Amino acid sequence: MVSTMAEIRTHTFPNGLTLAVEEQPWNPGVSFTILVPAGAVTDPEGLEGASSVLESWLWKGAGTRDARSFAEALDALGVRRASGAGLEYTTFSASLLAPHLGEALALYADLLQRPWLPEEEFEAVRLLALQELAALEDQPSKKLFVHLRRAVFTSPHGRDAAGRREDLLAMTPDALRADYARRYGARGVVIGVCGGVRFEEVRDLVEAHWGGWTGGAPEPPAVTLSEPHTLHVPQDTAQVQIGLFYTDVPPTHPEFYTARLAAEVLSGGMASRLFTEVREKRGLVYAVSASPGSVGGVGYLAAYAGTTPERAAETLKVLTREIARLSEGVSADELARAKVGVRSALVMQGESSRARAAALARDWFVLGRVRSLEEIEREVEAVTLERINHFLEAHPYERPWVGTLGAQPVEVA
Amino acid sequence: MVSTMAEIRTHTFPNGLTLAVEEQPWNPGVSFTILVPAGAVTDPEGLEGASSVLESWLWKGAGTRDARSFAEALDALGVRRASGAGLEYTTFSASLLAPHLGEALALYADLLQRPWLPEEEFEAVRLLALQELAALEDQPSKKLFVHLRRAVFTSPHGRDAAGRREDLLAMTPDALRADYARRYGARGVVIGVCGGVRFEEVRDLVEAHWGGWTGGAPEPPAVTLSEPHTLHVPQDTAQVQIGLFYTDVPPTHPEFYTARLAAEVLSGGMASRLFTEVREKRGLVYAVSASPGSVGGVGYLAAYAGTTPERAAETLKVLTREIARLSEGVSADELARAKVGVRSALVMQGESSRARAAALARDWFVLGRVRSLEEIEREVEAVTLERINHFLEAHPYERPWVGTLGAQPVEVA
Repeated sequence: MVSTMAEIRTHTFPNGLTLAVEEQPWNPGVSFTILVPAGAVTDPEGLEGASSVLESWLWKGAGTRDARSFAEALDALGVRRASGAGLEYTTFSASLLAPHLGEALALYADLLQRPWLPEEEFEAVRLLALQELAALEDQPSKKLFVHLRRAVFTSPHGRDAAGRREDLLAMTPDALRADYARRYGARGVVIGVCGGVRFEEVRDLVEAHWGGWTGGAPEPPAVTLSEPHTLHVPQDTAQVQIGLFYTDVPPTHPEFYTARLAAEVLSGGMASRLFTEVREKRGLVYAVSASPGSVGGVGYLAAYAGTTPERAAETLKVLTREIARLSEGVSADELARAKVGVRSALVMQGESSRARAAALARDWFVLGRVRSLEEIEREVEAVTLERINHFLEAHPYERPWVGTLGAQPVEVA
Repeated sequence: MVSTMAEIRTHTFPNGLTLAVEEQPWNPGVSFTILVPAGAVTDPEGLEGASSVLESWLWKGAGTRDARSFAEALDALGVRRASGAGLEYTTFSASLLAPHLGEALALYADLLQRPWLPEEEFEAVRLLALQELAALEDQPSKKLFVHLRRAVFTSPHGRDAAGRREDLLAMTPDALRADYARRYGARGVVIGVCGGVRFEEVRDLVEAHWGGWTGGAPEPPAVTLSEPHTLHVPQDTAQVQIGLFYTDVPPTHPEFYTARLAAEVLSGGMASRLFTEVREKRGLVYAVSASPGSVGGVGYLAAYAGTTPERAAETLKVLTREIARLSEGVSADELARAKVGVRSALVMQGESSRARAAALARDWFVLGRVRSLEEIEREVEAVTLERINHFLEAHPYERPWVGTLGAQPVEVA
């Protein structure tokens, strides 16, 4: 077994909020992630970036505390926090000493249920959002994937959580308050907790502070995709950024772990195909990777390479060829290495209360249930060589969307 | 106490190699960090970047295995690895399932003690190093600090581990092999191990695989600093990067934890001064932080802000003023928040076998001993308000080196 027997229990309250707790009795600390299903995908039309702006604005006073007092109260509990809006949801994560969990959950209940959203702070919040958007210009690999995502999806799933400049400028306090009322509510919210706490104790705390919340976010729209095509983002950078996007099986698919292992063969370890063929053998790139993901129930495999202008065309060619070559199957050794690689990664995830709390919340959001590390390990072990090679033959990785960013377009051979 | 009673034990072998082990009996995984005191500071004159190039070249075959077989052997153990050269040392870190530790330590013994350093792979290694150096041009904040560090130190401590283009081009296989022989050896090497293992067992494994190694790296030169001054790095970026560098007490100083808490007041939590005054109140920046560090026994505090060209001058002014204002002292509330913030951070570090293994190795390198999380907690608790305010008055943070990067120099008021 990859982990000591950490017990996971869940409870959905009558208001539609779900709690998932993984107990780590040896841990003096605890982490939680509150997942609110409000993300860029459900940002109002013409107000892209609303989820991000709302998330920042929430911190400007809540309950009985102004922004400063609220920040001091969290700091007084030693909370190490992180929060931010993504495509499908906004998360609020915290790590702290286990005895302070109740006080922290009460503060976050104020933050999400009773924010002031004060008029006089709105401009400062908008300004920061504009600055973060502008900073994207100095982050070429990130910028490439923002453009690539917009090209892949014809539904709002192609949006960027940072929003668009014109939309950020169009936002008003009233429009954002209306958006808060529409999307922030109990239904669909997931609170994942992991650390040195007991389930019953946490359930009572959540009931006390979150049980009276009502409402909930609307359903997101369905995902729609464009036809695979190629795009170039001109920018005067020293290096060339290359991104590929392939559709893949989603997390709910019976062969999800099979695809996960295929991605590991491609990009998991030192002997993985991309590392060996693109970087080590040919010295083509300073960075290369492929990683699976999903949005709106659609699975994907995204691949990235950063290289010099001179080597860009060859890098793109080798990269697509190596990914396509998966359909010819993997070897028994590759599968064995992929399995033990995934197992090690699970053990490392199991160490981190923060990673586990986030995984619990995301699991419930994506699957409607939570997976233990033991379950994932069993599923991974059950993938035989015959099964993965049958899958790869039946589901070839081909016809990617191709994005490049650099001074010149990359010649596609 | 911030952690369950993880026991730490150390052993220095006759050849000068030190092992430090923190036992986590509940953990099915284990991590280790091998620290070799070969970094940019001791790179041969005219061959800056040698540590980085050597580190990459080591992976091209060792012991009885060529590069490919070596990578496959590590992947077969499920090793999640990371390695790289820094200023003062090169580290080789790995996380894996605890039962495979012996096999992994044997492979790393080959890697460091019996590398092939094959001629035919040298050009590919050099090419990657050149690409990584070129990629710095697209990472403005990182690039700024490379320039700032070169300006601060007049000794080799101002170097960048990635090296210089002309030096990378000047390297030859023979020169690098001589450098390997000079700097790679047992003396001064530290192996930090943390996870589900027993000290005695690990000591026997290290003795078997590493006990016969000889030699060791030469002593590094002494640190020398320039007079504080201002520099601008012209680059056509959308944003302006600002970096400040202050000397501070080193990790061996009795007031080290006092200074650590002062940094926490400045930049630790949501209510920290920089976050509040620079970001929240004025909306000046999208990113601001200050973090302590040390090199060659010299402590420092480095501060960073990223902002728009229009707001750069005001950001720099507020940033330096807030840091200078520390000398007027902190409040009892601020100190209390800083303490609990550090305690939470310690608990989170305690969860991660990878973080602890790295901390053990670095502690021994910097201090000649290892600190338990309990010791750090006691030291932090022992800092009273009177003590920190006396310290801040006696050691004001003033006269920083100031670096900026952007299209135009920043006007210093």
